[in-house]
Amino acid sequence: MGKKGELLSYRPDIKVLDCTLRDGGLVNDFFFTDEFVKDLYKANIEAGVDYMEFGYKASKDIFDVNKFGKWKFCDEEHIREIVGDNNSNLKISVMADVGRTDLKDIPDKSQSVVDMVRVATYINTIPTAIEMIEDVKEKGYEATVNIMAISKTNESDLNSALEQLGKSCVDGIYLVDSYGSLYPEQIRELAQKYLSYGELFGKYIGIHAHNNQQLAFANTIEALTLGVSYLDATMSSLGRGAGNCSLELLLGFLKNPKYRLPAVLKFIETHILKLKEEGVVWGYDVPYLLTGRLNQHPSSAIKFIKENKTKYSEFYQMLFDNV
Amino acid sequence: MGKKGELLSYRPDIKVLDCTLRDGGLVNDFFFTDEFVKDLYKANIEAGVDYMEFGYKASKDIFDVNKFGKWKFCDEEHIREIVGDNNSNLKISVMADVGRTDLKDIPDKSQSVVDMVRVATYINTIPTAIEMIEDVKEKGYEATVNIMAISKTNESDLNSALEQLGKSCVDGIYLVDSYGSLYPEQIRELAQKYLSYGELFGKYIGIHAHNNQQLAFANTIEALTLGVSYLDATMSSLGRGAGNCSLELLLGFLKNPKYRLPAVLKFIETHILKLKEEGVVWGYDVPYLLTGRLNQHPSSAIKFIKENKTKYSEFYQMLFDNV
Repeated sequence: MGKKGELLSYRPDIKVLDCTLRDGGLVNDFFFTDEFVKDLYKANIEAGVDYMEFGYKASKDIFDVNKFGKWKFCDEEHIREIVGDNNSNLKISVMADVGRTDLKDIPDKSQSVVDMVRVATYINTIPTAIEMIEDVKEKGYEATVNIMAISKTNESDLNSALEQLGKSCVDGIYLVDSYGSLYPEQIRELAQKYLSYGELFGKYIGIHAHNNQQLAFANTIEALTLGVSYLDATMSSLGRGAGNCSLELLLGFLKNPKYRLPAVLKFIETHILKLKEEGVVWGYDVPYLLTGRLNQHPSSAIKFIKENKTKYSEFYQMLFDNV
Repeated sequence: MGKKGELLSYRPDIKVLDCTLRDGGLVNDFFFTDEFVKDLYKANIEAGVDYMEFGYKASKDIFDVNKFGKWKFCDEEHIREIVGDNNSNLKISVMADVGRTDLKDIPDKSQSVVDMVRVATYINTIPTAIEMIEDVKEKGYEATVNIMAISKTNESDLNSALEQLGKSCVDGIYLVDSYGSLYPEQIRELAQKYLSYGELFGKYIGIHAHNNQQLAFANTIEALTLGVSYLDATMSSLGRGAGNCSLELLLGFLKNPKYRLPAVLKFIETHILKLKEEGVVWGYDVPYLLTGRLNQHPSSAIKFIKENKTKYSEFYQMLFDNV
């Protein structure tokens, strides 16, 4: 499905997915104001973004609704309060985590403004992910699968997962660098692998990068250049830990005239700067580089930064002891 | 001269050059404390860094010594106050700008602890740069040339410059992305061009990247993978505008066991965080992305940020009007 791009032309198969609310919600427990979400929706439409992910479809049996903002659960009525019937070209996605989602919370597509469900899974729960994919496809949604933490996965397991997913009814498969540990040359190898399965089974390939080593944007455009077509990004990188590929960098790179950077810049100056002033903390910092480099989950770096610690060299030693 | 690397091995031809004082001096007019400089020198030695650039050899006829710290001028005695006779494996470099340096300020190598002079030039002053290179080579120094602002240069001019420099006695030629406007695929093309001239004429190739689009590290490791061997970096990216390739990211990537990250982390926690607290401002920010994307000098972005402005969308429009 993927096609190689050139620097001055553009590929019509490229889709940009804004996951500011979903990955950003991991930073502030999804407590975004309605104004933030409404303006984000408008900004994405104006900017020509293709998909906006509103959050997770998390099970209310598992998570306490009083401890999280509404975008952890993405009730149909809450999405409709923002988008009405969504009379726009912007498609709407939600993420469904294996083991944390009740499929009964996902209605038939005919009763929903949601267009796409993205199933997030680890490598050891692929069969469950496929069950979920079959369910949401049957209900009428576009479906992707996001295999997380592949930097910890061995090659034959990954091949087996891609083969199973290739044979499933999923529409697209995402290459996810959960720990921000992958270098561009590794991303290129992985992208080529994913693309070869995509080619064989007729699936598009997406990428979701993290910025632990200031490589989220670079890795995204490297994958894109090889033929990966669904690109995740967030406003000013807002997302867990070091954050994601920044939407402003990505739209600055893409050549399709439908993408318009000024709408993103306006959203940043109005809402993102305010979040920062309010003390919401994310983005590249030394501790994330260290967990990324050591291919570890960023949780220890998030804790270190939250505690305002700065003894990076001691932190690094501690991480080594944990390897 | 360049050799391709693999991800798990290392190339003994790689040299890391710390230009924290030189490019960072552009942020604070070179007013570093002696303690900062001494600890930087020690940290670089401990970290296995190959070269430390102390600053510019700027002419005191052109620049007022009262308006700049001493590292704008790099008097021999000031360097010796830090390094003594430099009984270490760390080599010392200074930068000599075409049109801003008196060659009489550069003594014979026999009277200096400096090992290398890096001549910085624009594309239209190559003959003057070559005169300077001949002078410093005759005096006994290793010499490189850093051709600045090549993203504004047409290809045939660049070829002609590389040909002239190839025939000169210069030791190495630097690929410099002054405006932080180049994407990895452009860096790869340029690196291949520089490397082919380097191969032909027996020169090593270096890279000096800027972080306007969060690509300084990515561009540096892309060039490195193709065979570029002299790599510029600074502590926590300290440098003009969006800053440079960060030394902590680069040493995290390099596999040669002689490079030791903890010394860099200690320097950052001791000195770089302090600089930030004192209000020295540098590093990736939206205005730099915008000048980088439009292939413009970062000066307007530096001014915008200094004035604490945040209307990014208006700033972007203004830049467009200037193109």
